[in-house]
Amino acid sequence: MSNQGARSGSVDASAASSSANSLRADSSRLDRFRTLRRHTEDLAAPLSPEDQTVQSMPDASPTKWHLAHTTWFFETFLLREHARGYRAFDPAYEYLFNSYYEAVGPRHPRPQRGLITRPGVDEIMAYRRHVSRAMAELIESGANGIDALLELGMHHEQQHQELILMDIKHVLSCNPLRPAYGSGGPHPIKHDAPLSWREFEGGLVEIGHAASDASPGFAFDNEGPRHRVWLDPFAIALRPVNCGEYLAFMEDGGYRRPEFWLSAGWDCVNQRDWQAPLYWEKRDGAWQVFTLSGLRPVQAEEPVCHVSHFEAAAYAKWAGKRLPREQEWEASADLLDGRGQVWEWTASPYVAYPGFREPAGAIGEYNGKFMANQMVLRGGCVATPPHHIRPTYRNFFPPDTRWMFAGIRLAEDLR
Amino acid sequence: MSNQGARSGSVDASAASSSANSLRADSSRLDRFRTLRRHTEDLAAPLSPEDQTVQSMPDASPTKWHLAHTTWFFETFLLREHARGYRAFDPAYEYLFNSYYEAVGPRHPRPQRGLITRPGVDEIMAYRRHVSRAMAELIESGANGIDALLELGMHHEQQHQELILMDIKHVLSCNPLRPAYGSGGPHPIKHDAPLSWREFEGGLVEIGHAASDASPGFAFDNEGPRHRVWLDPFAIALRPVNCGEYLAFMEDGGYRRPEFWLSAGWDCVNQRDWQAPLYWEKRDGAWQVFTLSGLRPVQAEEPVCHVSHFEAAAYAKWAGKRLPREQEWEASADLLDGRGQVWEWTASPYVAYPGFREPAGAIGEYNGKFMANQMVLRGGCVATPPHHIRPTYRNFFPPDTRWMFAGIRLAEDLR
Amino acid sequence: MSNQGARSGSVDASAASSSANSLRADSSRLDRFRTLRRHTEDLAAPLSPEDQTVQSMPDASPTKWHLAHTTWFFETFLLREHARGYRAFDPAYEYLFNSYYEAVGPRHPRPQRGLITRPGVDEIMAYRRHVSRAMAELIESGANGIDALLELGMHHEQQHQELILMDIKHVLSCNPLRPAYGSGGPHPIKHDAPLSWREFEGGLVEIGHAASDASPGFAFDNEGPRHRVWLDPFAIALRPVNCGEYLAFMEDGGYRRPEFWLSAGWDCVNQRDWQAPLYWEKRDGAWQVFTLSGLRPVQAEEPVCHVSHFEAAAYAKWAGKRLPREQEWEASADLLDGRGQVWEWTASPYVAYPGFREPAGAIGEYNGKFMANQMVLRGGCVATPPHHIRPTYRNFFPPDTRWMFAGIRLAEDLR
Amino acid sequence: MSNQGARSGSVDASAASSSANSLRADSSRLDRFRTLRRHTEDLAAPLSPEDQTVQSMPDASPTKWHLAHTTWFFETFLLREHARGYRAFDPAYEYLFNSYYEAVGPRHPRPQRGLITRPGVDEIMAYRRHVSRAMAELIESGANGIDALLELGMHHEQQHQELILMDIKHVLSCNPLRPAYGSGGPHPIKHDAPLSWREFEGGLVEIGHAASDASPGFAFDNEGPRHRVWLDPFAIALRPVNCGEYLAFMEDGGYRRPEFWLSAGWDCVNQRDWQAPLYWEKRDGAWQVFTLSGLRPVQAEEPVCHVSHFEAAAYAKWAGKRLPREQEWEASADLLDGRGQVWEWTASPYVAYPGFREPAGAIGEYNGKFMANQMVLRGGCVATPPHHIRPTYRNFFPPDTRWMFAGIRLAEDLR
Repeated sequence: MSNQGARSGSVDASAASSSANSLRADSSRLDRFRTLRRHTEDLAAPLSPEDQTVQSMPDASPTKWHLAHTTWFFETFLLREHARGYRAFDPAYEYLFNSYYEAVGPRHPRPQRGLITRPGVDEIMAYRRHVSRAMAELIESGANGIDALLELGMHHEQQHQELILMDIKHVLSCNPLRPAYGSGGPHPIKHDAPLSWREFEGGLVEIGHAASDASPGFAFDNEGPRHRVWLDPFAIALRPVNCGEYLAFMEDGGYRRPEFWLSAGWDCVNQRDWQAPLYWEKRDGAWQVFTLSGLRPVQAEEPVCHVSHFEAAAYAKWAGKRLPREQEWEASADLLDGRGQVWEWTASPYVAYPGFREPAGAIGEYNGKFMANQMVLRGGCVATPPHHIRPTYRNFFPPDTRWMFAGIRLAEDLR
Repeated sequence: MSNQGARSGSVDASAASSSANSLRADSSRLDRFRTLRRHTEDLAAPLSPEDQTVQSMPDASPTKWHLAHTTWFFETFLLREHARGYRAFDPAYEYLFNSYYEAVGPRHPRPQRGLITRPGVDEIMAYRRHVSRAMAELIESGANGIDALLELGMHHEQQHQELILMDIKHVLSCNPLRPAYGSGGPHPIKHDAPLSWREFEGGLVEIGHAASDASPGFAFDNEGPRHRVWLDPFAIALRPVNCGEYLAFMEDGGYRRPEFWLSAGWDCVNQRDWQAPLYWEKRDGAWQVFTLSGLRPVQAEEPVCHVSHFEAAAYAKWAGKRLPREQEWEASADLLDGRGQVWEWTASPYVAYPGFREPAGAIGEYNGKFMANQMVLRGGCVATPPHHIRPTYRNFFPPDTRWMFAGIRLAEDLR
Repeated sequence: MSNQGARSGSVDASAASSSANSLRADSSRLDRFRTLRRHTEDLAAPLSPEDQTVQSMPDASPTKWHLAHTTWFFETFLLREHARGYRAFDPAYEYLFNSYYEAVGPRHPRPQRGLITRPGVDEIMAYRRHVSRAMAELIESGANGIDALLELGMHHEQQHQELILMDIKHVLSCNPLRPAYGSGGPHPIKHDAPLSWREFEGGLVEIGHAASDASPGFAFDNEGPRHRVWLDPFAIALRPVNCGEYLAFMEDGGYRRPEFWLSAGWDCVNQRDWQAPLYWEKRDGAWQVFTLSGLRPVQAEEPVCHVSHFEAAAYAKWAGKRLPREQEWEASADLLDGRGQVWEWTASPYVAYPGFREPAGAIGEYNGKFMANQMVLRGGCVATPPHHIRPTYRNFFPPDTRWMFAGIRLAEDLR
Repeated sequence: MSNQGARSGSVDASAASSSANSLRADSSRLDRFRTLRRHTEDLAAPLSPEDQTVQSMPDASPTKWHLAHTTWFFETFLLREHARGYRAFDPAYEYLFNSYYEAVGPRHPRPQRGLITRPGVDEIMAYRRHVSRAMAELIESGANGIDALLELGMHHEQQHQELILMDIKHVLSCNPLRPAYGSGGPHPIKHDAPLSWREFEGGLVEIGHAASDASPGFAFDNEGPRHRVWLDPFAIALRPVNCGEYLAFMEDGGYRRPEFWLSAGWDCVNQRDWQAPLYWEKRDGAWQVFTLSGLRPVQAEEPVCHVSHFEAAAYAKWAGKRLPREQEWEASADLLDGRGQVWEWTASPYVAYPGFREPAGAIGEYNGKFMANQMVLRGGCVATPPHHIRPTYRNFFPPDTRWMFAGIRLAEDLR
């Protein structure tokens, strides 16, 4: 999500509704909360204080900023509001670690997050402990009215878990030594199956998350309301485009032939001298790719990754196909193979669903205000926490961005 | 249209189909052609060679470039292909006056159109006469297969008629003397009626231009194919927002309150120091507006004009409403009052309709390649040639642009 | 002069001092004034209104701006002050045509001079006639106290005569048609003599213009006071470097070898992709050069021109020599061959001479305020009015600029 | 020095010339070397790994880069050349920690020094130990021909000691918490004496360092050759301008009145919104200044610091004086009070002295290639290692830079 932050969500009102079950529910929620917090810290563990400090481009944030901002979220929206007698760890953090909430107040400019060397990693870890303890007390106290915000805060932190990996990958890629994040970095799975397709009749379908669904579960506000759309007949590919296929596009002059490109994409190709996906580099005549485990050869059977929307659309045009609309993707999601390997660019700009209304207050700034000049991605990637992979989930980024784990799925009209 | 150029279109194949009527048809087409060409020249007539030479920003073009480029279009796509023995006026013009057709070849960089002082206005007028004469011969010859391209070329030139006015208005506004284009510049009509609304049930509707429609008529390629969409119930305002209403937004702190703005819009407000629509300036405490007739007081009953999509969306949010989707607009177009006064920003990003395919060849670059980061505007404005005002017409510009004659129409959900 | 404007000067007080000779003096001055004004207009005569309107870069100005600004100078500093009952041609011109005089008031931003299409050339010519007439009356009236300002205004206009040629050459060079200013454009003279040198002992010498000199004559304020400097022994080349010699530098990898370049110069080479002097272009394997007469082959015997200080210094280092200091240049000026062909870059930054004081008032802004980050050039070029070629004259430009007619003369230490 | 690096120097050939004294000399040199290296590490000691990693602007460098680059200098110019069997610590460091030596080979781009998180501080400290050990062996071995390079390397590292303080001050100032480097940061001494002046007759004087001087001692190459200059009579102030005096300039509209400013300086004032020296901020109506010890009130009696050349020149003009030329400064240096408190801007652009020749090889890139668009500063500041404060020392920075500890000394003409 290019807002680099959290999103407002709705939770099933039936959760924790029964007072008889509330103790168990609280204990279970507390476990989830602790597991979540620990997982974030585990992601930072392979990184030195130096690694965690640097911001390699305005769109990305330092690791230690992510550690602090996710904590700020709980402090600002839960503890300050609902925890009686809570004392802020440091009043200056309200300013330092606000991402983009105008309603909360002024904030440190985003492109300058990497200039803040203090508080350092140790102090931010103390901040995390302070807030986690206070949150544990709040959860155990059985306080009312915090369920939705708690869920939101946890999903928010999960989003930042993915951002930590995206952003540190970019930092490390700027180092001519190409150092690895760690040996256990996530890898997309290979697919050597031939590309097969599935056809859909279309018609009037329902998509989006229903707040009062029979099937409970969390969703961000921008995933609803559930609504009807008309779809014309279409076919969709059963796996993402792989590197071997993408190399064929490159070798056919893909980056030198304007006829495949949107005009703004062609400008990008020329102004930024794009010749391959981000993180690809040619060494001794062979394509290598920088990964969280370091540099290694491009493998033909692996989904192509770190392409912009412009590259995805150009590839699709070269292939005589198109990108799926997000409604087509959602309507066919259950059948799709390779889902969750790489985020999949759709042909759909990120706009409000019919009937969408932002929640009141600062939380309303989550998603709605980013609905301009961004494209929807669906699915999820190997760096995405599992609970974030669901058919209605709408990720979004500007069409020229490449540092998230994004790939290509093809579609086509049937008539 | 932010591509600043022409668009590929489809014409009803039944036009001029009967050989018995062909002579009359040719004579009528020739009249239309001559009237069109003369009208373009009439628009340039109040302007000096100095006025016609300058490019005030990369998005805009000099008047004499418009005079030449519309001529280049006929020369390139009709005369070179279909006029036996045609001799190009000057081979260098193929390079100089190509707007954005990659398939035609390299071209002079757009931001440097204003550096070309030669050919001057006189030579460009000679170029126009040369091409107009050759076109007249071609039309009179009854040549086959030129109908669609001739229609396209004429609609293309009409688009540039509007651009001439948009662009010269910007040039003249940069002059601290605020000189007038002329005394007869177009003015939107005043509306002093209270804002009333009309409700629609929605449902499954058809929108877009049908190529084989029973009702003949020209449309650009991006207006089709005709297709079904589902609409939820909505209401739409029966006139555009006027300056008095917009002033109330301004006086309520509209440009200082982030809660009304898309995030990218709020960045624009701050980075470009927007405090009012383009061309408004405060003198002695009163708002004045620069028009093609010079500077004059803002009039409350007039449609507000020269606002960006960001301002339109912020106004709508302040008013507790939203902008219409382009499908809603088209479905209700016949009832809409004040259509054709100002282009009306919609909530819809500019994307391909289901089943859209670009035509083959250079003409395919018309519309499709601009489908990124632009929003659809509907309707038309006082500077739009009448034949360009039709329900299916899709104009498009990036959401931060303001130099076209664009205003605001409100809509809202009914449930 | 990179201030693109006039300079404050001192005139010999003895000029026109005798009342007996005043009538003749006035008549002679009037002739000079009229000749001067006519010459400026003659320079603009080959140019169309389109040519005269465009500004091709922020450093340059439109021809018609030069026509107006030189007129503004007489109006502002002479007529407004000294001509009883003078009526300004248009009060708005005070703002429009002020170049950089803070003391006169605000002014139109320099990079936007090319956006002002009105007043057009005809109106500016009427402005010139209006002011020339009023000036003629003022001169004939024998008004007191105008001598120094009149001289200054005339030398100011001569500076702009050279700027007109420099600036229009740049405008025309941006046109892919490479149109000529005219067939009679000035050409540097060829030198096929071998490079010879003259040695100087140095010692304590005097340089600069002495205000109360026995030899009367005009000089700008920055040419004085006359003062002593110590020079170590040196040798200086008797003609400028020619194109053949410069080509040897290029062919020896001059533009690819950092060891010859100042660090800031090497940045320019790489960032701006310099591979040859400005206006050189390779066609079919041979170097051509764009001149005021159009494109023609580079000629080996001609002085190299349109090089920056960085290129001049790199060439000198490659040749095992150095550029002359301005004091060395002036001390040896009388012997120098080829003076007046191309401006000659010196090794001297442009700073105030010992004892320099700016005149009081707006005129004090002429020269002094530009004494930062500029290098002195000496001599004069084929586009320089003859009266501007004198040993004490100090031209100045930033070291990365190339659009003036500047070349290279070598020097070396003798011990 | 704005090259941010070392400078080529000359050492007295008589040093260590006697073989009888060589053992003692080596031991003394080794002590000096070890003390020097330890002092650099002491300067970094108060800083966390996070502090040492960040680059707050392209002109500045991370602390850990300084720690590594000074080490690289010894490794590259001494150990690789003169230490038999030396094994480089890491071959990649040759690329990573080269500052600007084209002759050594390609290097990591300067503006991206802050993106290199690895090697971290610990690894760089190991690199320092590795090189320091090898250097100690080399020094103890009595190797021939290393004297000059060893001296140069030590003076080079001393220059970086000052840069460490300058650069980290800028980093910390970007933090809204305004954290202190430490409580013991250097402070300029207060002067409450009235401003007094000393007069000089001028005449023919010698300035610059003489390589074969009777008085031995190190100097950088740009401090020589010693040469004659003629000076007109002048007076020079006996202490630098203090904050109280500078506040009077500010309160008299100094930053709002163009008449005091060089044209390029006035552009800076307006484009960068300068209203006070760097690091000054107004809180509750009173001026505070950020120092290495944190924020504290501006004190009137303290030398004003962190002003650009443009501000220094504007202040001098406001005061009716001027800045001293560097030759005047050097000729009167022994008498000057307050020397070594703040670097003192002179009126002299940084150019080669007569007869200056760069040394051969990479070391020749030290100083000569930076002789463009920079002004000379003389003296030294509280952050300057004592051995760097000598009358012939020439520091240099572009006239718009403010992050070094630079202040103002006044001078004036006597006739």
